[in-house]
Amino acid sequence: MSDLAATSKRLADLGVTRATLLLDEARARANIRHFAQRANAAGVVMRPHFKTHQSAAVAGWFRDEGVTRATVSSLGQAAYFADHGWDDLTVAIGLNPRELNQVADLAGRISLGVAVDHGAQVAALARCPHPVRVWIELDVGYGRAGIPHQDTERIAALLDDLAAHGQLTATGLLTHAGHSYGTDPGAAAEIFHQTRQRLQTLRRQLDRPDLLLSAGDTPGFAAVDDWSGLDEARPGNFVFHDLMQLAAGACGADQLACAVACPIIGVYPRRRQVVVHAGAVHLSKDGVATPEGLVHGRLLTLAGSSFGRIADDGLLTGLSQEHGTVTFATAAAMAGLEPGDLLLVVPAHSCLACEQFADYRTANGDVLTRYRRG
Amino acid sequence: MSDLAATSKRLADLGVTRATLLLDEARARANIRHFAQRANAAGVVMRPHFKTHQSAAVAGWFRDEGVTRATVSSLGQAAYFADHGWDDLTVAIGLNPRELNQVADLAGRISLGVAVDHGAQVAALARCPHPVRVWIELDVGYGRAGIPHQDTERIAALLDDLAAHGQLTATGLLTHAGHSYGTDPGAAAEIFHQTRQRLQTLRRQLDRPDLLLSAGDTPGFAAVDDWSGLDEARPGNFVFHDLMQLAAGACGADQLACAVACPIIGVYPRRRQVVVHAGAVHLSKDGVATPEGLVHGRLLTLAGSSFGRIADDGLLTGLSQEHGTVTFATAAAMAGLEPGDLLLVVPAHSCLACEQFADYRTANGDVLTRYRRG
Repeated sequence: MSDLAATSKRLADLGVTRATLLLDEARARANIRHFAQRANAAGVVMRPHFKTHQSAAVAGWFRDEGVTRATVSSLGQAAYFADHGWDDLTVAIGLNPRELNQVADLAGRISLGVAVDHGAQVAALARCPHPVRVWIELDVGYGRAGIPHQDTERIAALLDDLAAHGQLTATGLLTHAGHSYGTDPGAAAEIFHQTRQRLQTLRRQLDRPDLLLSAGDTPGFAAVDDWSGLDEARPGNFVFHDLMQLAAGACGADQLACAVACPIIGVYPRRRQVVVHAGAVHLSKDGVATPEGLVHGRLLTLAGSSFGRIADDGLLTGLSQEHGTVTFATAAAMAGLEPGDLLLVVPAHSCLACEQFADYRTANGDVLTRYRRG
Repeated sequence: MSDLAATSKRLADLGVTRATLLLDEARARANIRHFAQRANAAGVVMRPHFKTHQSAAVAGWFRDEGVTRATVSSLGQAAYFADHGWDDLTVAIGLNPRELNQVADLAGRISLGVAVDHGAQVAALARCPHPVRVWIELDVGYGRAGIPHQDTERIAALLDDLAAHGQLTATGLLTHAGHSYGTDPGAAAEIFHQTRQRLQTLRRQLDRPDLLLSAGDTPGFAAVDDWSGLDEARPGNFVFHDLMQLAAGACGADQLACAVACPIIGVYPRRRQVVVHAGAVHLSKDGVATPEGLVHGRLLTLAGSSFGRIADDGLLTGLSQEHGTVTFATAAAMAGLEPGDLLLVVPAHSCLACEQFADYRTANGDVLTRYRRG
C-alpha cells in the first residue's frame, strides 16, 4: 500500500469523515519542551502565546513542562484560560478602551497584564478598580503596533501617565518582532539580537531597571539558542509550527505537529489534481510563496499515532470557500485515489487553520476542545 | 462631526465593543429582490446559495421574495436549514462518500439534491434508502470540479450508473462558472452565455431533454439581465456583495450590505495608519489587487440604520491573526481618531468574513444567529 493509501486508511480508522484538525501530541510536546528548556537555561520566563492553539488541553502540555504563565490576544481567550485555571495572563494586543468592563472583571480574578501605547488606553485603565500589570508596547521594526522604540520621550510620558494610578503597575516593555517571519534563520537571529539590544538600550535610556523586557516571535526564538538578556519569551506558533516556519527554516519537517485531514470529493487525473472538501474556511487563505505559486498546504503521511514525512509530490495549490485543490507532480503519485479517500494536509499557517475548528483530534484518537469566539 | 466620527458614534450607540458583523438589511433585501425578479422574469427557479450568509433569519428575507429552494455547500449547512423549515435543498459540492449516513438522514427528511462527477459517489449513494435528486457536476471552464463538459461519454456513463438505482433521480447538469470572478461585466456576461450554451449543447448531445440546467456565479448573473434558457440559478454572494464584486463591476457601492465594525487599538499618524482589533480571523486573508497592493477592506460610513458611502481615504492594507492595519491617504483623513473609536470595514470577500462570526447585527440593532460548523 502506498503511503497516501496507508494514511487514508489510518485516518478512516480514526473515524474521520469530514475536514478534521489533527495533532501529533508527541511532536507538540517535544516542541514545547525544546523552547521551555531554552527559556530555563537562559533564566527567561516562558510566557507562550496561546493564540495558536487556544485549547485548555494543549495548555496542559505546557504546564507539564513547568509553564504557568501565558499570553493571549483577546479578552475572550483570557477569560477562557482563566476559567481553566490559568491565573497569570498577558493580553498582548493593544487595549481596547471599549472592553474596560471585561478587563476589570478579569483583573479581579487573575494577575492580568495588558498592552498600551496611547494615553487614551491609560485613561480607560484608570477606571479599573483592580490591579493591572501594564506593558508599554513598542515597535522595534515590524511597523504594526507600538510606540517606535526610538521615541523615548513619548514612552517616558506614557510611563508618567501610568504612575498617576496606584492600581496600575508599569511592568515592562513589550514587543512583537513580526518582521522575522518569512525570512531565514540568519536574518531571524539578527532581528532577535537587534530587538533585544533595542529593548535594553531603551530601558537604560529611561533609567528604569525595574522594567521587564518581553519579546516573542517564533522565527527569532527558534534561530537563537541563548535567550538571556530578555526577561520574558512569548512565542506561540512553535507549538505546532507550519509550512511558513518550515520554509523559513524555523523548524524541521519532523516538528510539524498540526494538520487537517481532508476528504477527497473529486479526482482529475488529466490535470493531476484532486479536490478535497476543505477550503479557505478550514485552512485559511494564507500561503507560502514558492516557484510553483502560492502553496496553502502540503501532504503529510500518518503511521500509527505519528505524523510521518512530507509527501513531496502533492501541493495544495488552490482554495475557495469549501474546496481545496491538490496538484500532484505526476499522475502516478495520485494513482488509486478516489472520492472518499482522506489526505492529511499540513497548513501554511497553523494559527489561522486551528482557529477554524471547534476541536482537535490527536493521532491517538483523543478529542481536545478549544476556545471559540462567541 | 466627520463621517468617520459619526460612524463611530453610531456603532457605539449600537453597543459595539469588539469586531462585530453588521448588515444593512434594506440593502440585502433589495439585492435579493433584484435577483429574484430576474429569475421570475426568465422563468428560472431561484435556488440561491446560502453558504454566503448561513443564517435562517437572512434566509427568511429570501422567503419574503418567494424563494423556497436553496443551495448549500455542506451537509452541516443542509441540516441547519432543514431544521429551520427549508425542505428543498441542494448540496452543491462533490458528494463525500464518507458522509453517506448524513446524506441518508437528510434525504429521509427533505427533498435533497447532491452533486456527483465520479462513479464512487454513485456507488455510495446506491446505499441510501431514500430518494435523492442527483446532479451531474460539470466543468465548463473554471477547472475546479466536475466532468469536463466536452466529455459526453463519461457523462453518459455516469447517467447510466444512476439509472440502475431506483431511488436516485438524474435531475440535471450543474456547474459553477467560477472563472467569472475577478473579471469585468463584459467578460462575466460572456462566460454566462458560454456556460448556458455549453449546458444546452451537452443536454442535446445526451438526448436528455428531461435534465435541468443549473448554474450560479454572482458575477455572471449580475452581468446578464435575461437568464432564460437555464432552469435554475444558484448565485449566493449577491445577497451582501463585497469589494471583489465591486471591483469586478458586479455591484454598486450602494449594494454593499455587509461590513465588520472594528475597534481601533492603535493610532500611528506618522505612517498615516491605525490598527484595529480585527484580523485574518475576522475578515479572512482574501483581498482585492489594487495599484496600492492587496486591499482586504475599505471603510464605509453609517448613518442611522443605513450604510452610506465608501470613505475613499482609508484602505485595510494589512492583516495578521488578530490585527488589521488601515492606511489613510492623508494624515488629515485620520485626524481625531483614537483607541476605542470604531471603523466600519467592508470586507474583500463577504462569504469568508461572515464565516468567522457566530452572529450578525443589523444596523437596526437586531441580532441574527447563523449556522456554525461544530
